[in-house]
Formats: sequence, C-alpha cells, structure tokens
Amino acid sequence: MAAAALAVLTSFSYPERHSFPFVRACRESSSAIREGDNMSESRYLGRPVRRLEDERYLRGRAIFTDDIALPGALYLALVRSPYPHAEITNVDWSPAARVPGFVTALSGRDLADWLAPFPVPPQSAGVRLQRRYPLAVDRVRFVGEGVVAVVATSRSAAEDAAAEVLVEYRELPAVIDPEAALAPDAPRLHPDWPDNEAFRWDLSFGDVDTALRSADAIIELRLVNQRVYAAFLEPRAAAATVDPAHGQLTVWASTQTPHTLRAGIASVLGIPEHSIRIVTPDVGGAFGAKGGLYPEYVLVAALAWRLQRPIRWTESRTESVHATNHGRDQQQFVRAAFRRDGTLLALDVHLLSNLGAWNASPTRPTAVLTGLAIAGPYRVPNLRLSLRCVVTNTTPQAAYRGAGRPEASYLLERLMDAGASRLGLDPVVIRQRNLLHPEDFPHRSPTGVPYDSGNYPAVLAEALRRFDYAGARREQARLRSAGRLIGIGIAAFCELSGPGWESATVRAHPDGTVTVLSGIAPSGQGHTTMLAQVVGEVLQLPLERIRVVTGDTAAIQQGIGTFGSRSTALGGSAAYLAARDVLEKALHIASHLLEVAPEDLEYRDGRFSVRGSPDRTLSWQQIARLAYVMEGPPGGIAPGLEATRFFNPGRRNVPFGVHLAMVEVDPETGLVTILRYLAVDDSGRLVNPLLAEGQIHGSVAQGIGQALYEGIVYSENGQLLTQNFLEYAVPRAAQVPSIETAHLETPSPINPLGVKGIGEAGTTAAPPAIVNAVLDALQPLGVHHLDMPLTPERVWRAIQLAEERVVVR
Amino acid sequence: MAAAALAVLTSFSYPERHSFPFVRACRESSSAIREGDNMSESRYLGRPVRRLEDERYLRGRAIFTDDIALPGALYLALVRSPYPHAEITNVDWSPAARVPGFVTALSGRDLADWLAPFPVPPQSAGVRLQRRYPLAVDRVRFVGEGVVAVVATSRSAAEDAAAEVLVEYRELPAVIDPEAALAPDAPRLHPDWPDNEAFRWDLSFGDVDTALRSADAIIELRLVNQRVYAAFLEPRAAAATVDPAHGQLTVWASTQTPHTLRAGIASVLGIPEHSIRIVTPDVGGAFGAKGGLYPEYVLVAALAWRLQRPIRWTESRTESVHATNHGRDQQQFVRAAFRRDGTLLALDVHLLSNLGAWNASPTRPTAVLTGLAIAGPYRVPNLRLSLRCVVTNTTPQAAYRGAGRPEASYLLERLMDAGASRLGLDPVVIRQRNLLHPEDFPHRSPTGVPYDSGNYPAVLAEALRRFDYAGARREQARLRSAGRLIGIGIAAFCELSGPGWESATVRAHPDGTVTVLSGIAPSGQGHTTMLAQVVGEVLQLPLERIRVVTGDTAAIQQGIGTFGSRSTALGGSAAYLAARDVLEKALHIASHLLEVAPEDLEYRDGRFSVRGSPDRTLSWQQIARLAYVMEGPPGGIAPGLEATRFFNPGRRNVPFGVHLAMVEVDPETGLVTILRYLAVDDSGRLVNPLLAEGQIHGSVAQGIGQALYEGIVYSENGQLLTQNFLEYAVPRAAQVPSIETAHLETPSPINPLGVKGIGEAGTTAAPPAIVNAVLDALQPLGVHHLDMPLTPERVWRAIQLAEERVVVR
Repeated sequence: MAAAALAVLTSFSYPERHSFPFVRACRESSSAIREGDNMSESRYLGRPVRRLEDERYLRGRAIFTDDIALPGALYLALVRSPYPHAEITNVDWSPAARVPGFVTALSGRDLADWLAPFPVPPQSAGVRLQRRYPLAVDRVRFVGEGVVAVVATSRSAAEDAAAEVLVEYRELPAVIDPEAALAPDAPRLHPDWPDNEAFRWDLSFGDVDTALRSADAIIELRLVNQRVYAAFLEPRAAAATVDPAHGQLTVWASTQTPHTLRAGIASVLGIPEHSIRIVTPDVGGAFGAKGGLYPEYVLVAALAWRLQRPIRWTESRTESVHATNHGRDQQQFVRAAFRRDGTLLALDVHLLSNLGAWNASPTRPTAVLTGLAIAGPYRVPNLRLSLRCVVTNTTPQAAYRGAGRPEASYLLERLMDAGASRLGLDPVVIRQRNLLHPEDFPHRSPTGVPYDSGNYPAVLAEALRRFDYAGARREQARLRSAGRLIGIGIAAFCELSGPGWESATVRAHPDGTVTVLSGIAPSGQGHTTMLAQVVGEVLQLPLERIRVVTGDTAAIQQGIGTFGSRSTALGGSAAYLAARDVLEKALHIASHLLEVAPEDLEYRDGRFSVRGSPDRTLSWQQIARLAYVMEGPPGGIAPGLEATRFFNPGRRNVPFGVHLAMVEVDPETGLVTILRYLAVDDSGRLVNPLLAEGQIHGSVAQGIGQALYEGIVYSENGQLLTQNFLEYAVPRAAQVPSIETAHLETPSPINPLGVKGIGEAGTTAAPPAIVNAVLDALQPLGVHHLDMPLTPERVWRAIQLAEERVVVR
Repeated sequence: MAAAALAVLTSFSYPERHSFPFVRACRESSSAIREGDNMSESRYLGRPVRRLEDERYLRGRAIFTDDIALPGALYLALVRSPYPHAEITNVDWSPAARVPGFVTALSGRDLADWLAPFPVPPQSAGVRLQRRYPLAVDRVRFVGEGVVAVVATSRSAAEDAAAEVLVEYRELPAVIDPEAALAPDAPRLHPDWPDNEAFRWDLSFGDVDTALRSADAIIELRLVNQRVYAAFLEPRAAAATVDPAHGQLTVWASTQTPHTLRAGIASVLGIPEHSIRIVTPDVGGAFGAKGGLYPEYVLVAALAWRLQRPIRWTESRTESVHATNHGRDQQQFVRAAFRRDGTLLALDVHLLSNLGAWNASPTRPTAVLTGLAIAGPYRVPNLRLSLRCVVTNTTPQAAYRGAGRPEASYLLERLMDAGASRLGLDPVVIRQRNLLHPEDFPHRSPTGVPYDSGNYPAVLAEALRRFDYAGARREQARLRSAGRLIGIGIAAFCELSGPGWESATVRAHPDGTVTVLSGIAPSGQGHTTMLAQVVGEVLQLPLERIRVVTGDTAAIQQGIGTFGSRSTALGGSAAYLAARDVLEKALHIASHLLEVAPEDLEYRDGRFSVRGSPDRTLSWQQIARLAYVMEGPPGGIAPGLEATRFFNPGRRNVPFGVHLAMVEVDPETGLVTILRYLAVDDSGRLVNPLLAEGQIHGSVAQGIGQALYEGIVYSENGQLLTQNFLEYAVPRAAQVPSIETAHLETPSPINPLGVKGIGEAGTTAAPPAIVNAVLDALQPLGVHHLDMPLTPERVWRAIQLAEERVVVR
C-alpha cells in the first residue's frame, strides 16, 4: 500500500505520467475566465509577461544585502540567551577582548543608557506598553534573545569573541504555554504589567445566545494553529555605513518595509529621518517576517553610527529560527449554531494568541486580523468574539504570510466540514448554503469590514467543474472500496488584502525612458515586472524603456512596503495614477504643438496623433525632450514630465477563492500524499497571470508546509527544539504536487486597476483544504480531528488509535 | 616707491592697520539697504546664516570624486597629442601591453566604431555640425587632445603604459590666431566644413550709420579679452562602476550639470537615461568650466560599461590646463558714436571669438551672450553687431564665470572711459548720462533681451557715496602731485542671469524633518545653505531639520544644474514654490483636524494655531506624522506631504552693480597694487548676505586675476606655454585686497523670491574697473590703452615707452 501511495506521489510530481483519469495538470491561467473583460486591446495588462527580474535571479547576479561590498567593514555577533527567562546578573566581556580582531562589546544595559526603546506607533493602540531595546536589558525573556553585541574585524573573530563573553544569569520560572501564561500565578514577563495579557478584544454582533438556543446543531471545535517559521532562503541581514561629511547613515537591510525601518532606527537612535538612508537590495523571500523593526538591524545601525565605521551582520540559520519572528501560534475554540439545512446561525469564537516575549508587530497583534476576518466569505448573522494575546517565554510572534487571516480561514473551514459531517451534508452543500451571494455586495461583515465585490458561488461552481467534484467523489468511493484511504478536502476563503496606502513616482527622462519609484519592497514576487507593465500600458512604451526602483529611501518618496497582499492593488494603482498624470501632461504639450484640443488626440504605441489626420503626429520621445528643454516647453507650459501619487482606497479589498485537494493516506506509515490540488481564485483583475500563478504556487507550497510538515516545537522548559532544516521540515519540491490553477476576475471597484490581493491565497486555503482532505480520508476510521502538522507520525498514531478502537469495539 | 606700494598693499590686506583715511573695510552686508523691505519678520531669508557646508569643507571631511572608494578600480590614462594639428597615421599599443598592470587600450578609431559622436542639442541651433568623439579620430586638432585611452590597475601603471604607446603622426599646418583662421587659405580643422567659421550672428537695430554721421565724437577701440583657465582647486575627475544585476551604470563626476552629463553619456553610449546614475559629490570649484560633456568623463563611463569593472580618472594640473575648456578669448572692435554731452548714440561692434578646436558648449558659443549683453546697463538707440566664432588649433573655449557677459562689460566700460577721456568728461558723468533709469523698466534691450527691474542711478550714487568719490579724486590729485601713479576706475555693469528653468522637490518625512532635492549642482557656493534657508523660512523649521540633496540623478527629478548665476533665482524659487505647496497641504490637514477654514489658521515656528484661539494648535511634526499614517490622513485627504516644482520664469533676470577700484602703479616695476575695491551690487533680494558677499569676494578675486595676472599663452606653433601654476598666475591671497561690499535690493518681479544672480558680478566688473583704474593712473604718462593681463612687465614696458615718448617730445 505504501508503495502504491509512493507511486501515486511520483506520478503526480510528473503529471504527464499520472494514472488518475480525472486529473489534469492545469496551467490555464492565460486562458483565465474574465468577467467584463475590456483588456482585449491591452499591451501588457493581463498578459503573462515573464519576470524582468529573472535575468538576475536565475543567473546568480542578484545582489542581496550580504553581497554589498563594504571595504573595512566590521562584523557583529550576538551573545544570545540560553535561558527562556532569567535575570542578567553580570556581563564580563574582558575575555572576549583577548580574541584577535575584537573591537568592542556592548550589553543591553549599555544600550539602554544610550538609545531610546523601540517606538510605539499609533497603529498599536490598545497594546500594553513595552520597553524593548535591541538587546535584553537586565532580563532575558526567550531562548535566543540578544544579550551582548560583539564587534570584531571578521565574522569568525566576532563569533569567537562572542563565545568568550561571560554572562551570569539567575534563572527565573518560565512560561511557554499561552494558556498557562494566563493563570494568576504564572511567571510574569514584564514586571510592570499586572499580568501577561498584552492585548484583548471582545466583540459582539447580533444575539449569539438566542441563536445557540434555537440551533438544530451546535458544533464545538478546539483547534491549534501551530507556530511556524518563515523559512526564507535568504536569512535576515543588515549592513550600515556612515558618511561623516553629510552626517548620513546608510543601512542596507533585507526588509519588506524600508521606510518603517528608517522611522524605527531614527526613533531609537534619536536622529532625524532625513539623515538615514535605507537601501533594500534584492530580498530572498520575506513572507511577512521581514517587516517591522528588528533588534539586530537597529544594532547594526547604532554601532555604525557610534563607531563611524561600516558594520554588517547576517544571521545563521539557527539564529534565524530563534530570532526571526515566528508566525501563527493561535489556540482557537469555536462554538457554532447551525440550522438543519446547514445554515450557520451564530459563531462564538475564543482566540488565544501566543505573542512570545514581545509584541513584535508595529501594529496590534496579527491575531486581530483573525478576528476581523472571522466571518470569512459567509453570512454570519450572530457573532461573539473574544481574543486574548499573551506573552510567553518564546520567540516573538508576528506576521507570517496571511498574518491572522489563515487562522480565521482554518477555523471556519474546519468548522464547515465538522458541521457537514454532523448534519450529514456534503461539504460543498454546507458552503453553498452560507456563502455570500453577488447581491449581498457591497457587504459589511459583522466585524465591520466592508467587502468590495465578488461572485463566490461562481468561483465555487467553477472549482467543482474543474475538479469534476462528482467524478472525484465516485473515484474516491471506488478506491475506498478497494481499501485505500482517499480524501477530498475543500476550502472556501476570502482575505482582507491591501491595507493602507501606497505611493509611486513616474518620471519620464528627456530621452523618453521612464523611471518608476515605488514605495513597495519586493522580495521575489515580480513587482518590478508588474509595475513596468502598469506604466508601460498607460504610456504605451516597451518594458525595456521603463526602470522600476524600489527599496531606496534616498530616492523614493515615503512608502509603506510590501505585506498583506498590497503591492499590486496599492502600489500598482499608485503607479497607474501617476502614469496617467504624466500622460495627461504629455497630451497637454502635444495638443499645444499640434494645435488641437487634447481630446482630439489619440495616443497609441508611443505616438500622439490627431484624430482623423494620422499624419499629424508627435512621438513620446519628442514630447519628453520638449518637456525638459532649457527654455521650457512651448506655450508657457511648466517644464517637467513626472508625477507622484499616494493612493489610498480607504479600505481593504477582498479576494476570494476555492481550493480543492485530494489526498491519499498510507495507513502503514501515516504518510499523506497530495494527489491533486486545484486553486480557483478570484483576485480581481490579474495584471500578470504568470506572476499570479507564481503566487498561488508558492503560497500553496507554504500552506502544504504548515498542513503537513512545519512546526516550531519548544520543550517544556522553553528550549527551541526545531533549530534548523534538519529539525524544521519545509516541503521539498517532490512533496509539492503540480498545482492546477484557474482565475475568475471580479474587478475590485475600489482601485483603478480592479485588482485584489493574491499573495496569501495558498497559505490561507491549503491548510484547511488539506487537513479536511486527510480527515475525509480517515473518516472511515472514525478520526474526526487532528492538529497540524499532519506528519506521518501523527497520522499513523491516529490510525493506530482508531484501529485499536475498532478492535476494542 | 616700490616699498611704499608694498606697504600700502600690506596695509590693505589687514584693514585694521591701514593708513588711508578714506578707506573703510566695509563688511556691512547684514545692514544692507533694502527697498521695500518686508523681511523684518523673516526667520532665515535675508539673514547672514553661516554655511552649513563649512563643517565638512573646513575640517577636511568633504568627499570629492577622487575620494570615492571603489575597490578594484582600474585607472584611465590618456595619451595626448603633442601636435596642434596632425593626422594620426598609426597607433601601436603593443609596447604598453608589456607594462605590468596594463589592462587595455583604445584609440579614437576604436571608439568611433563603437560609440556615437557627441550629441547635438537643440540649444546649439545654427552652430556648424561637428562629429566629436571622446578621443581624436584619425586627426588631432589641439595640443593635449586625447588620442589613446589606456587602462591599467593603478594610476602609475596607466601612466607608464600610456608613455609606451607609439602614435605616429603626420603633422599638418596649424592655425592658432582666430583672425588668421578666417583667411581663405588658412588650414582647415574640419575638412567637411567650407571654412573655419563655426557660427556667425549679425544683428542690426536702429540706424547706426546715420548716428555715426551725426556724432560729435566717434570712439574706436580694439580690445583683446584674453584666454583664461578656470583654475579650480579640484581638478576634473570621474569614476564609474556598473551594477550588472540591474544594468545600471553609476558615474561620479565633478560636474555642474549632472543631468546634462547623463544625457550626453546616454547618447554617446547608446543606452537609456534610466540606466545611468550620475552622482556629483563635493565639487571644489567649477566656474562654468565643469559644465557640459567632457571626453574623459564619457571615456570613464564607456570603459566601465564595456569592461564591467570600476574605473576612474583624475586629471593632473598640466592635463587640466590643456584639456579643460578655456574661457573668454575674444577679439573686439567697437566704434561708438557720442554726443558732446556724453550721450551714446550708436554702437558698431565686431566680435571675433576663438572657439578652439571644437564648440564645447552644449549651446551656441558663449560669445553669443556677449552679443546679447552688448548694450549693458545703458540706453543704446542704435546698434550693429557682428559676431564670428572660429575654430583654431587650440583647446576648446567655452563657459568661464560670466561666460560672454564679462566680455561685453569690458568692452562697454573701456569704451565709456575712452569716451569720457575724449570728451573731457568725468567717467562718472558719462555713465550717469547713459544709464537706464527706473522709469525705463520694464526695458527691452536692442538685442531683444527684456530687463526685469533696477534702479541703476541709485546704485551708482550709493557707490560714489561709499567710495567718497570726490574725496578719492582729491586724494588722487594730492598723491599725483607727489609723483605717485594713482588711478581710480569704475565699472557699471548688468548681467543676464538665470537662464532656463530649475526644479525642486520638498519632501517632509513622518518625523517632520524635510529633504529638499534640487536640480542645481553646487561647487562650493553654499547652495545647500541657501535652499535650507528658503525651505526653512516657508516651513518655519530649524535648519538642522532640513537636508538638502543635490547632484544625484537617481534621487533627484530632472534638473539643469548650476551656471549663469541661476541657482538661487531658479533653484531657490523652485524650492520656495514646492515648500509653499507642502505648507498648503499641511494647512489643509490641520484645518480639517482643527475644524476651521485654512485661512483661519496661523502658522508660525512650526505650529498651526487657530486665529484668536491660540490654545487650539497642532505642531508641524503632528501633521507630518498624520500625513503618512497607514490609514491615511483624516477626512479622506490623500496621504503624502511632498511637492515637486519646475520653475520657469521664461526670461533671465538682470542684476546690476557699480564697482570702483583705486590702484597704484609702481613706475619702477610696473607692479599694480589695488588700494581699494568697492562693490555695490543690486542683485535683487539677498537670501543670505554672507553667501552673497562670498560670491562678490570670490568673483572679484577672479576678476583681479584676469585683469592683472592670468592668461593662457600659446606659442606661434601652437604649444601651450602656461602649463601649470608656475606659468599660469592666479592671484594669491596677498594680492586680493579687502573688498568693500554693499547691496541695494531691487526685487526681481519675475521670481517669487525677488532675487537675481550674483555669482558672476566680480568677474564681470573687476577687469574693466581695474584696467580703467590702471589706465587712469597711467593717464599722466599718456598711456591710453593696454590689454589684459596688466602684468608688471606689460605695464613697465608701457611706462618705458611713454617715458621715451616724453623724452623724445
């Protein structure tokens, strides 16, 4: 049987050799269905343009932070806490000073006398105040927290010297489990707090208690959304140098939020933002965990500023697993009231979020997003929500691809399956019963979030059609009767994407080439290509005439960065609007020269021509040159051909999708094999189906990781056990099936491109789709619940227990 | 007598010890007279703020191009022509390849197969087309022209290798003198041209011939405005590197026009402007001669692009004197008609400009400006002008501080003195007779140039009052009677300043600090301070909260640069307008928050307050932060707090000044000692009197240089004889007197600051003022004419000749 499963697995990794008649390797994004398609004449929008970044990514020419040459740079190494909770009673770095190359060392106490604590941004309102410094001051709160910064002339010298530093600790009782952290007698992490609760949120909508009393069925679930690590290829890294002539601090950093990082460093160092330049070179993956303000980045900046010498730091993988913010780690309890026909009447949700030792979000904790998204794509007439965020002696937890929304989706989709199971309904039927319909839009969720647009039943129908759901169920029944554990799982989900605003400058040069300066900060998604497409579409220029610049605060107007699936909806829209402004200016100049009104001009393929007089034309290049001649453009028009836009839709967009998975479980090993995975998404208009597909593929792979393999594990006494890729398992290529994708496009009405977020679809949908599929496969054994990750061991144990029950029975 | 003169000189270098009762060391710029002064409440405008740049300039922390660290950089050395005119018959660099460190070598022929010739900008309309490459192709046209580019791993290796390159020449007849170059049988520099004339301009206004016939006196003068070298402290330098990941070429260059340099390099290399970044670090003087496109800068860029390795070049002083564009070199013939009372009736002017081997201006030759400015501050009812620009086998001639306008001023002021002498009038009287009066404004000169504003008689009166002109004449008479050669010279002049447009971005950061990105490109004038003052005034912020960025095309919107006394009038005005836009946006946000109309708000010292309710306030910082919060500013106002402005007044401003000099000539040595120098200028409003004074001091020093010491000398066979500072004499500190300055302020109506140019006043006024003074001193000897520079030898010879005449007589 195991051999059979492996054979299937192999066949699915190489779809051309697969053996299931209803399986198709679907790569149809370029033939995606579109509603109201008006892009038939488009030059770039909606086209599967290959990534402009590929040249450097694929040929090893990308420049990451660690590649920045800084002659004479010093290296930073950190002495990190071996204890989850302890007082620092003494630091003696004199032995380190004897290591050749040693330059200096600083303790947290030294820093606290010099630097300000991490800033408290307005977005974090309601969160208990914490005084965090780049190094632990007097007390460590998690294993791996920085205690002493050691600077030396080489990385090895810095590490050797760090190993010589003597730190004396007085161990304190630690608390690792968030529920335990709420106990009145739990060890307290922050002595000035009354307890370990950092944030709480209670919300009530409608009348949950009445709904519960009138329900035909009440479903209760307790779910654990495990702690995970954003296993980016490029570890975190920072480097800094000082230009004393101009009092300028330059920091290279692998970050998603260069401007926020600048603000943080300015605040902690007490120097003006105008004195700091953050440069973000290529970034090798970020996934939410490279946002915000990291202690090590501040340290690099502060030490360069103080020593007036270049300094750098790149984390090791073990450091990364310890000190990069973790994601998820939410305990969920839900009680739901259903009517017999599957109609959801009420949700009563309790969320417990383990923040780790510090709230590392520059906002309220990410679990707030779980709350905001808790109604998902469904009608929820009554809702009660309570959220508790507690600190524990673990690594801080913050954003990880999806950042709170996958936790909501997981809860809802597990709940739907449990409800269907109890009520004897097909999982599809219970979802059809509760999904929002087109006529519900514009919709406002019981948590107060406006939903922009969508046709959820159409997406579900398309998914079922493409999956041949009925056929798949028949095939499942056929194979089950042959004794095989085959399961089908479904997840319908929506996201809340694109928070805040974003900026862009579109600057035409005198030779007609264009530079786009964007506030977003890509980490491999292809944003440069997306922005070039948007601007190339408006200005009707070949992509090679457009250069996109991101991640340099010296050049770029204030921006926010990349997270929350915001880059196309906000950054793309800002670029679109700026390009429109530029085109309008160019039309103005052309209309003056051609002596017609702007509305009598046509612009196509880089040429302005008079309607009806196609020989009266001017090229884009001619206009660009004229915009900048010494005497200024003709007619007294102001010189210049550029525009800057800050685009703020005022609300998030709401993409939707239905993902379906078919799995087989090997009863002898517990190994889960994904036989098929179909993702049908409606993320509004697609600027580039190829990039959209890449986002689906990557995020599904990460969702598979959380569903089946990944999990940060602490020992009871607070030691992090999963220290590297031997112990923390991310899916390998062979464990990710060929993913079928399709897209419907319901344009968003809240941005000019009609686009919605797409970057987090897979991490949101894949965990519940796969867990639902596995539990469906195990259903004949009476296994109704398992927590992620569904490792072979965990599945095998469940099968053993179930078989024992069968034997006993 | 010589000892006495030296004693006087010394006393004037240290004014507190001077011995002339009527001499005052006048440093009264902060008490400058102002018309319609409304700046009494100003925070910075009009205040003598010290240069923010001083910290780095004075402490040796400035970073010049040669200071840029480029690990692994290669060095460029040039093989330069030893002949003024020759065919290149063979280049053999194989001996150079044996020098250790040699990397590659390229001839002009190699380049011509690869690169495009220098671009022909639209501003150079009417100039004969030339095909210029960064190295001579097949033919050299001046001594010092680049012939072979040699690249090696160090500067010394490159120079050693260059010395080994064998170039064979076939010498051609050369022409050095511009008049000779016009002869029909003169050697032709550009075989595809019909002759050596590169540009000609003829203009006629009124009826010159009738005026000449009706004149009481006709004055004819033949003047030589000698060729000079812009003896900047920092020689020209460039460095370049390529980022292959982004296809980006970065060029550091000591230039006044980074954006123009980018366009030039893009055009010659055939790559888009968006792929090129020009960075201009600190520049140690430029004086017009660091504008435009230099062959060596293009070479550095091209070689870095081709070799994909960093490369650099810094010229030696001897290279600099040979290959930096020279200035002036104009032969002038003027015939003027005067009425008996001194009224100027007509000017008939013939100008012959020696362009050197190439027109190195990106515009028409600078002598065009001599033509445009030929009427100066005077009423000229009839004008005939002919200008011929010819090529010769000498270093190219282009802009040098004043660029054509000093030549016009020199002609006019020498003419006025000659007319006064002929008509027996005081030099002041003849000028009073002809100066434009306030009621003449707005005025249009006979060359078609509009004059914006001015009160010329008031400036003249102020100068006479401060100089105690009558007292000075009495003192002169007293000393003359004691046998001393004392002279008083006057120059009244106007300039045509601030051509074209300029740009600025004012960007507020969330912490309320501000970055100003300006298109101007300073070379030591204090523009950073000026821009900070302008923006600090509008935004009412301390200067340390404002950072000014110039000279980085990756960060800055398109700009033009610094030349033609344009930086404050255009760059300052653009910054002013952008800052006003930013303030308006801030007011909009504040008015929404404070719930009053913007006009009910007062803004002062960084606080917005409601008129009449001084406790209802918001700080600038609060508004800046709110402008950028995630959810956007309140009231649906678009995020962002920045503005970009391109300011184009559409015409030049016209500053005016009267400079007076008193000199003593030592009859035994010919040494000229400047006893007093007074500069009274009306450059419109002064943003910073201290900087204005610096401009006067520096430009007067350079004007003294041209008047008394400087001159590029070629041998008859085209060898440049003045090869370095041993042979090319610039004034030393002891040769520059304490300069008295005063300012009247007639605001310019054509820019929002009311400012005019000031940077070229001294090079325009000092040469005629000093030459007039020297000739006045020699007048008892009957010496009526001498050409600059008035070196001791030249003056001594004139005295000897005159005394011989006296003896003969």
